[in-house]
Amino acid sequence: MKRFIPVLWLALTLAAACTSDSQTGATSQPSAPPMTQAAGAGDPLPTWNEGRTKDAIRDFVWRVTKEGSPDFVPVPERIATFDNDGTLWTEKPLPFQLLFAFDRVKALAPQHPEWATKEPFASLLKGDMAKVLAAGGKGLAEIMAVTHAGMTTDEFAPIVEQWITTAKHPQTGRLYADMVYQPMVELLAYLRANGFKTFIASGGGVEFMRGWTERVYGITPEQVIGSVGKVKFEMREGTPVLIKLPEIEFFDDKEGKPIAIQSRIGRRPIAAFGNSDGDLQMLQWTMAGSGVRFALIVHHDDAAREFAYDRTDKLQQFDKGWDEAVAKGWTVVSMKNDWKTMFPPLQ
Amino acid sequence: MKRFIPVLWLALTLAAACTSDSQTGATSQPSAPPMTQAAGAGDPLPTWNEGRTKDAIRDFVWRVTKEGSPDFVPVPERIATFDNDGTLWTEKPLPFQLLFAFDRVKALAPQHPEWATKEPFASLLKGDMAKVLAAGGKGLAEIMAVTHAGMTTDEFAPIVEQWITTAKHPQTGRLYADMVYQPMVELLAYLRANGFKTFIASGGGVEFMRGWTERVYGITPEQVIGSVGKVKFEMREGTPVLIKLPEIEFFDDKEGKPIAIQSRIGRRPIAAFGNSDGDLQMLQWTMAGSGVRFALIVHHDDAAREFAYDRTDKLQQFDKGWDEAVAKGWTVVSMKNDWKTMFPPLQ
Repeated sequence: MKRFIPVLWLALTLAAACTSDSQTGATSQPSAPPMTQAAGAGDPLPTWNEGRTKDAIRDFVWRVTKEGSPDFVPVPERIATFDNDGTLWTEKPLPFQLLFAFDRVKALAPQHPEWATKEPFASLLKGDMAKVLAAGGKGLAEIMAVTHAGMTTDEFAPIVEQWITTAKHPQTGRLYADMVYQPMVELLAYLRANGFKTFIASGGGVEFMRGWTERVYGITPEQVIGSVGKVKFEMREGTPVLIKLPEIEFFDDKEGKPIAIQSRIGRRPIAAFGNSDGDLQMLQWTMAGSGVRFALIVHHDDAAREFAYDRTDKLQQFDKGWDEAVAKGWTVVSMKNDWKTMFPPLQ
Repeated sequence: MKRFIPVLWLALTLAAACTSDSQTGATSQPSAPPMTQAAGAGDPLPTWNEGRTKDAIRDFVWRVTKEGSPDFVPVPERIATFDNDGTLWTEKPLPFQLLFAFDRVKALAPQHPEWATKEPFASLLKGDMAKVLAAGGKGLAEIMAVTHAGMTTDEFAPIVEQWITTAKHPQTGRLYADMVYQPMVELLAYLRANGFKTFIASGGGVEFMRGWTERVYGITPEQVIGSVGKVKFEMREGTPVLIKLPEIEFFDDKEGKPIAIQSRIGRRPIAAFGNSDGDLQMLQWTMAGSGVRFALIVHHDDAAREFAYDRTDKLQQFDKGWDEAVAKGWTVVSMKNDWKTMFPPLQ
């Protein structure tokens, strides 16, 4: 039986929680042709600073959408795939789905007095992350299981909804949905306005993401690809239900991303967006198609406004991906230099 | 290791090929409110005879699309899922994907002289279906493996394309893509014109269907849900490829249909269309949602123009589904009485 979350991933996740978030080892932007365009009054990317990154995005969109261009791509083939954690929203101090799981343990604790003395719940309830980590992947799988399984899909959805609309990030005090990157939200809308279908391809769980991606990103549930937990179909008093089981069906990371993109979309993306080595295979798969293509990596180099991490990050390492981006001339976003703002204005 | 195709399914498939196709045990249409509407000049369903089936379709679409109607459904929630084999195109004498596999064995035979004496290939090449069946599910899994695996996804696509544009049905002499049901093609277009997203939810393989569903049904690859074979991501001389393996990842039939609909679409359909007990769970799942919903079953009762089979069919049994349709008042299409024509006019 497969673990609910691969043990290694969990161990790395918690290890990351216990180390510094600010480790910048990468040094320079990969080169791209300089082509500065003045932003008009109707600039669809107003929070992107002018420069070669913004130019590269506009140039790509212009080439594939202009009728008669040798690089023209018909609308149905304009597929763009986006990683979520660290590409569309923040992923520190831990991927938000894990913070959701931790919050759920706290919320469920009154119904589980036995957790007061049972690891890893006891340590989690005391806020002792080092001890939670010491319990290893097995303990974390237990946390994921009690918070993500043993209920129907219809019961799970409002739990996520309640959390995403009320829980706050420990450092910024913002709702998690207010920690999406405003420039990326603009980029999603800009691509859709140019006939693209925008998909998420995330290691996160589909049932966790779908309740809010439409409202926050404009991405409908059927365009959310992610990790999938096993479910069981059952008739309960004549009514069919889907029960979430504590096992993972498919883990959508690294090689899993192109595999899921192929099985779910059935078309190779012409543009892909990521921020770590977990996205590398998706970017490689995208760029290996024929015709003009676009690969963009979000580089977390802004410790002042968000977090800074790359080559040595234990959870979201951006190392091989960095080398390949430089070698291949992919577009690398400097969050510090390319983005005027990080998060959306608060309402 | 899971077999490429479940053994039972294969055994039943071949058993069906060796028995009669004309077994009609069901007796009556389930009742539906009579509501005859005259077809206007712009009738979007011209090959549907006037009557309560056509009325039920129009009534449902009217109710969920009319602004201010208590049954109004917003556009993003207008999800409709269709079985493919027997619902959108013919599935006799065998599901067409199996006929494709058999044709591929014949095409590959010159490269495999050993097949002349090796079962089940030898019997297949001689056209002796009874002996192919005698080889059992293991033999058929071998046929599926040699024809559907051991190549990249990019290599498989043109093989299907070549077959679907040239191979002919043994009884009608038509291209298989010309054996889609014209009334159902109209129904798909009618729903889309009313803001629906139309999805396939088929037991057939996604890689087999996607090459032609857009051209034939207007259903884009990302809206094709089906059985999924395992694939492996591999770098070949610096280029990523996805290699099709001889194992099934997910079998999209019976309980698999609502499970895949949930993991892939993430929204419960408000309308579902099928023709056999393999579609029952999808129909149950669809109808169990809140608000007005629509379930339609295509009943194969037209031996003169197509095939007639239902309760006792060994492959595509329509028995429990029939009972539930009658009990619940679902819409049952009589192909004989409700459809003016079966297949599209030949070009």
